[in-house]
Amino acid sequence: MRLSKIGEFGLIKKLRSRCRNTPPEILTGIGDDSAAIKIGNRKILVTTDMLIEGIHFDLSYTTFFQLGYKLLAVNISDIFAMGGYPKYFFISLGIPKRFKPDDIGALYSGILKLAKKYDIAIAGGDTCASEKGLVLNGTLIGTAGRIVTRAGARAGDGIFVTDTLGDSAMGLELLKRQKAKGERQGARGEQLFAHLIKKHLMPEPTPVKDIADITSMIDISDGLLIDLSHICDESKAGAVIHRNKIPLSRELADAAKISGLDPLRFALKGGEDYALLFTAPQDIKTNAFRIGEIVRKGRFIMDEKGRKTRFKAEGYEHFKE
Amino acid sequence: MRLSKIGEFGLIKKLRSRCRNTPPEILTGIGDDSAAIKIGNRKILVTTDMLIEGIHFDLSYTTFFQLGYKLLAVNISDIFAMGGYPKYFFISLGIPKRFKPDDIGALYSGILKLAKKYDIAIAGGDTCASEKGLVLNGTLIGTAGRIVTRAGARAGDGIFVTDTLGDSAMGLELLKRQKAKGERQGARGEQLFAHLIKKHLMPEPTPVKDIADITSMIDISDGLLIDLSHICDESKAGAVIHRNKIPLSRELADAAKISGLDPLRFALKGGEDYALLFTAPQDIKTNAFRIGEIVRKGRFIMDEKGRKTRFKAEGYEHFKE
Repeated sequence: MRLSKIGEFGLIKKLRSRCRNTPPEILTGIGDDSAAIKIGNRKILVTTDMLIEGIHFDLSYTTFFQLGYKLLAVNISDIFAMGGYPKYFFISLGIPKRFKPDDIGALYSGILKLAKKYDIAIAGGDTCASEKGLVLNGTLIGTAGRIVTRAGARAGDGIFVTDTLGDSAMGLELLKRQKAKGERQGARGEQLFAHLIKKHLMPEPTPVKDIADITSMIDISDGLLIDLSHICDESKAGAVIHRNKIPLSRELADAAKISGLDPLRFALKGGEDYALLFTAPQDIKTNAFRIGEIVRKGRFIMDEKGRKTRFKAEGYEHFKE
Repeated sequence: MRLSKIGEFGLIKKLRSRCRNTPPEILTGIGDDSAAIKIGNRKILVTTDMLIEGIHFDLSYTTFFQLGYKLLAVNISDIFAMGGYPKYFFISLGIPKRFKPDDIGALYSGILKLAKKYDIAIAGGDTCASEKGLVLNGTLIGTAGRIVTRAGARAGDGIFVTDTLGDSAMGLELLKRQKAKGERQGARGEQLFAHLIKKHLMPEPTPVKDIADITSMIDISDGLLIDLSHICDESKAGAVIHRNKIPLSRELADAAKISGLDPLRFALKGGEDYALLFTAPQDIKTNAFRIGEIVRKGRFIMDEKGRKTRFKAEGYEHFKE
């Protein structure tokens, strides 16, 4: 059997089943955005994310500064997704010998730029050579009061997202098209769609300010349908999404029109939005977008006329063809 | 300027100088084996280590089980080097698509084998595809009472090591020679020197039981001369090593004789021993080997006749040619 057959989530399920022997101070372990651990009378959150050249990024259209920024951003997003505060960052770098110290300096500038915004300290790391491509791993430790997991959504809750969806995936699509056409970074098309491209290269995680009424939360990193499915799996519940309530940016709509692509496909299945998806009573006061409801079972997208179609957990998954 | 010019330690120094803005709860940050952070009234230790195929390991003579074991071992060693207790492990894996789920299963078996020994819980991680080779990153969180850093050695202290040195580096040398000769794993030479090879492929970190009198500590990962130099740098002190007191295993002596190599070179400059080096008053009760003394300044190796030669921080350093 090959990895491509069971995919990333099949593999994680297999591994998770072997790591069940956890002590009581681990409040949530494998299978959420971050692990939550009780240390004395405090709680810490821990998340780790790996970025590999050729898989997660392409140095022909990503600067080292942007890459450093994104490395920290994706980790912050996992801490915010649990209702926590990011605090201490650890950076492992596998660097090909041909790189210059200034490249790594620029990478650190990107990390430090975002670290400053949230008062995060760089507390350690590991630096080594890499034979083939650049490899980054970030581990972020946060603190937390109440911890919000993926399990906790109840039938009747509203489903909310904190930002427009699909922008990052469209940004990536535009970058790939520009590369295929041989256009340099900073070319005309890039200026036109700078907003979408920036959302891909330098995502801006933003926390939900008041988590008191939130019943479950996840960050949208693999795409709305996959990440909402994780909430459904862990909460043992179903969901209905209203197609016309999914927030699309004007830029996404424009880019899709010009390219002859379906913007909704990017919003539903595009990854790396790093917006938060949460569930809460439908009447809470929030400036997040309400896109649907949690139901007892079944997973549906509903169109304007009330017709429901089942959806599957489709989006970005490592190893899958 | 290229990385090969400033080397791993030059790069770390550069990066460290940019990350000075640390809050008071970070007790030790970049530049020790682990970071120590105060969480409420407790202290945690955090270390992270990356292993990259082609740089740190060669799958033609390392099994997945051994690799998993080693990934956790090198992280445990960093926690022991601070006087702490390893607790929660996080694993990031970048896996080429051609790998089988069973390969990763075997890797986890190796991790879990050692985790069980020290009651360490696997608390999370990240799993993604890798384009070229296998990449592993482990982050280990430990707890600690008193924290032992690299700074604290005082003139007059004895220098101690917890195990024979150079075995791992000789084990690697033998594996490379076997590979060059086209011998399979399990070949005759490997049986003969199984002890040395095992020390390279599956190092066994062991803690110092009573740290009360220890003034500084480090794990020997880059070689005795480099790691003792780190103690000297951080403690602002010098050191004298007695050449004839450096503990060499019988196996290392035998292998060196047969191969016509100098065993002392392996003990002084060979990396990946994962023994602990510590300083303490010379008369403490310990079963560690006393190999020298801390002095006010200068770094020397002394031979049987009392002749001293200066040593440099030579051993394994990433990026250096």
